[in-house]
Amino acid sequence: MSDRFSGKRVLVTCVDRYMGQPIADAFIAEGAEVFTDTSALTTQAQINDLLQRVGEIDVLVANFAEDPNPQSVVAIGDEEIETLFSGMVTPLMRIVRSVVPAFIEQGHGKIVAMTSAAPLRGIAGYSAYCAARGAQNAFVRAVGLEVAAQNIQFNAIAQNFVKNERYFPDEFIESDFFKEKFLPQIPTGKVAEAEETGELALYLASEKCTHMVGQVIPWAGGWSTTTG
Amino acid sequence: MSDRFSGKRVLVTCVDRYMGQPIADAFIAEGAEVFTDTSALTTQAQINDLLQRVGEIDVLVANFAEDPNPQSVVAIGDEEIETLFSGMVTPLMRIVRSVVPAFIEQGHGKIVAMTSAAPLRGIAGYSAYCAARGAQNAFVRAVGLEVAAQNIQFNAIAQNFVKNERYFPDEFIESDFFKEKFLPQIPTGKVAEAEETGELALYLASEKCTHMVGQVIPWAGGWSTTTG
Amino acid sequence: MSDRFSGKRVLVTCVDRYMGQPIADAFIAEGAEVFTDTSALTTQAQINDLLQRVGEIDVLVANFAEDPNPQSVVAIGDEEIETLFSGMVTPLMRIVRSVVPAFIEQGHGKIVAMTSAAPLRGIAGYSAYCAARGAQNAFVRAVGLEVAAQNIQFNAIAQNFVKNERYFPDEFIESDFFKEKFLPQIPTGKVAEAEETGELALYLASEKCTHMVGQVIPWAGGWSTTTG
Amino acid sequence: MSDRFSGKRVLVTCVDRYMGQPIADAFIAEGAEVFTDTSALTTQAQINDLLQRVGEIDVLVANFAEDPNPQSVVAIGDEEIETLFSGMVTPLMRIVRSVVPAFIEQGHGKIVAMTSAAPLRGIAGYSAYCAARGAQNAFVRAVGLEVAAQNIQFNAIAQNFVKNERYFPDEFIESDFFKEKFLPQIPTGKVAEAEETGELALYLASEKCTHMVGQVIPWAGGWSTTTG
Repeated sequence: MSDRFSGKRVLVTCVDRYMGQPIADAFIAEGAEVFTDTSALTTQAQINDLLQRVGEIDVLVANFAEDPNPQSVVAIGDEEIETLFSGMVTPLMRIVRSVVPAFIEQGHGKIVAMTSAAPLRGIAGYSAYCAARGAQNAFVRAVGLEVAAQNIQFNAIAQNFVKNERYFPDEFIESDFFKEKFLPQIPTGKVAEAEETGELALYLASEKCTHMVGQVIPWAGGWSTTTG
Repeated sequence: MSDRFSGKRVLVTCVDRYMGQPIADAFIAEGAEVFTDTSALTTQAQINDLLQRVGEIDVLVANFAEDPNPQSVVAIGDEEIETLFSGMVTPLMRIVRSVVPAFIEQGHGKIVAMTSAAPLRGIAGYSAYCAARGAQNAFVRAVGLEVAAQNIQFNAIAQNFVKNERYFPDEFIESDFFKEKFLPQIPTGKVAEAEETGELALYLASEKCTHMVGQVIPWAGGWSTTTG
Repeated sequence: MSDRFSGKRVLVTCVDRYMGQPIADAFIAEGAEVFTDTSALTTQAQINDLLQRVGEIDVLVANFAEDPNPQSVVAIGDEEIETLFSGMVTPLMRIVRSVVPAFIEQGHGKIVAMTSAAPLRGIAGYSAYCAARGAQNAFVRAVGLEVAAQNIQFNAIAQNFVKNERYFPDEFIESDFFKEKFLPQIPTGKVAEAEETGELALYLASEKCTHMVGQVIPWAGGWSTTTG
Repeated sequence: MSDRFSGKRVLVTCVDRYMGQPIADAFIAEGAEVFTDTSALTTQAQINDLLQRVGEIDVLVANFAEDPNPQSVVAIGDEEIETLFSGMVTPLMRIVRSVVPAFIEQGHGKIVAMTSAAPLRGIAGYSAYCAARGAQNAFVRAVGLEVAAQNIQFNAIAQNFVKNERYFPDEFIESDFFKEKFLPQIPTGKVAEAEETGELALYLASEKCTHMVGQVIPWAGGWSTTTG
């Protein structure tokens, strides 16, 4: 434990989903003042309320996650498409457009989007999820480049295979489905500890990381690494 | 003119948008029976009607396009997000899930999605457009891998900078905005002729192209080439 | 059979290696005058002699291939490194620098480099091979962008899993090594026919393909598709 | 200053080139015992001597750098190719194959290769440099996946545009060549401070970063970000 983020104000959305809590914990452990929210932020009004309640922030951890529903493309339902996009893409776009003006005014700001490596490689049976996550990743890249010159660093952690009761719970990691379908494809041969993702978020949010912008970082034990 | 597609039945959606017509023309010139549609296919019922009217097809050119609205991320409106995703992403997902069963049953099928290179590189000022196009590209990758073993080849032409009155009209190509913002970034130093995109679509739809699947092909005069 | 390349002069190097002969055959079948060479072109003098003997050409198929030697990185020998780089990278760089001046003078030219998808994804046990193939791919990208404005189109077919007695012979395709290590990773579930690669080379070398430059095209049954 | 690397032994090669010294300084500031070398390590014997002299290490910073010589592909000389590959690629391959056995035996190890973003995007006029750097990046990807299951994390910092007297000295940053050719292409609008690269190296070398392997990280102010 140290105090690398002492004096910093950090907002973590959807803290109760996926890696929200472990990331909040990582910032708290480094001395940050961390604000969290558990609503799905499905309306702009909710986002406005949240940002007004929280006030000035230095770091936004934009965490929006809906569970994939593995199935053939033929079986994807309209409701599933709606859930994935309205739960992951629209709120990301809305909260980013809402915090950027304040970040420009204060002359600095960090946005860490929690996304997925799934669309980087493509996964049969997860095409609707890949589409929605792909929209998130593309949005990070475009906005990350747009706001870079204003001292705002916006990057994404495109993760897969990280232990966490709300993301990769033990029962899934120990299931035959996981062991047969995914484990052999992970070069590290393991699922990462949640605190590792927290550490990456801390790195991206630190003042010493200004040269990386608009970057979608594959974070998946080597499952997806192609970058050029 | 030859007859490489003689006996083949091809459906081109939204033929009146972007590269729809030039691509339809390319298939017609090669002897295909080409079916076109000009509706936006905003409902599943419309898609069902279209597919029923057309009957068996060998090739689907899935063209769904909405114009970008260049502006800061701060200014993106909910209506714009809705227009881009409901006009480009949802109909692509729906028509693909709708044609795949018939393609599996007949033992073959080609899908060429018309997408954009914008999300591959990211463009400041086009973040909502990049997000929606990124969703399309990620969907192609995931579904392309999923259906590959059933002799269905699904790829995307991720284009930019192709002449066409409905896509890059002459007045845009000759505008100062284009000449200053984009032209210097195009290694070929020019905007391509529409028939070139038609030729690429023919190649992807040919029987001699089965080894490329789930591929998002940057098609942009070298503006975006990174592949690994 | 048609005559899409009637009147065109095409040079295929190392025609006796990997996909050299099938590609030469594809151009011949389309009416091209095809010149081939079987030397390894290990010196600039050999390249000069070849180019002088052949005279003006419209298309260069730059095929340079050495077999990988699957083994741990720990076991890579200096001789292997030397063989791979002097056999694949140096001759590619030399022949390209040698043909570009004539291509610039005649106002057009096509270069199709035969490379590999291996470095795009990375393969454990093939690291020296990946390094040399990665050098080829990076060279194509950089030179492709450099010469694009002079109406020279330089792209690479980054292939894997194509049948050919000199590349993927039947005995390898039917080996347990292949069936266990690679086949399950190929989304199409098969190894492509050699003529398909010929068709892709024809497409890239055609006059109707000027909008793709500096592109490394993954050509591997979906094994490697990430493009952004 | 803290002691995140207290008790850790770190070797930085070619400390007098490019970012060698700033990275060594970063580890020293965090309490590591840092060993440095200034030879070009052009022979295996030199590498053996160095590794024997240094003894057990936890982290290898594999820094091998030769200056690019911007020019047309037509003008690339054999000597330049030789210098770039024998100075950057061969020693990287040799030192990695030499340290991996000890890393496997001790049950852990970190390798951070200092490479370049140039081949990820391709730069006209830098094709030989891109080829050699591309070989490095492809090698990192392949070996990174190969050794991942043995608790060895091998990644690359593919940098561009970082201030340092031996890499991007002030006179270059202030030159018209740089301001006209490169600066407008950097989304952040600036050249990063050297200590930022040190911080990234510390992050990659930390015990809390085991989920990233075989990764080539674009580190270039947004100049190259495409990852999928």
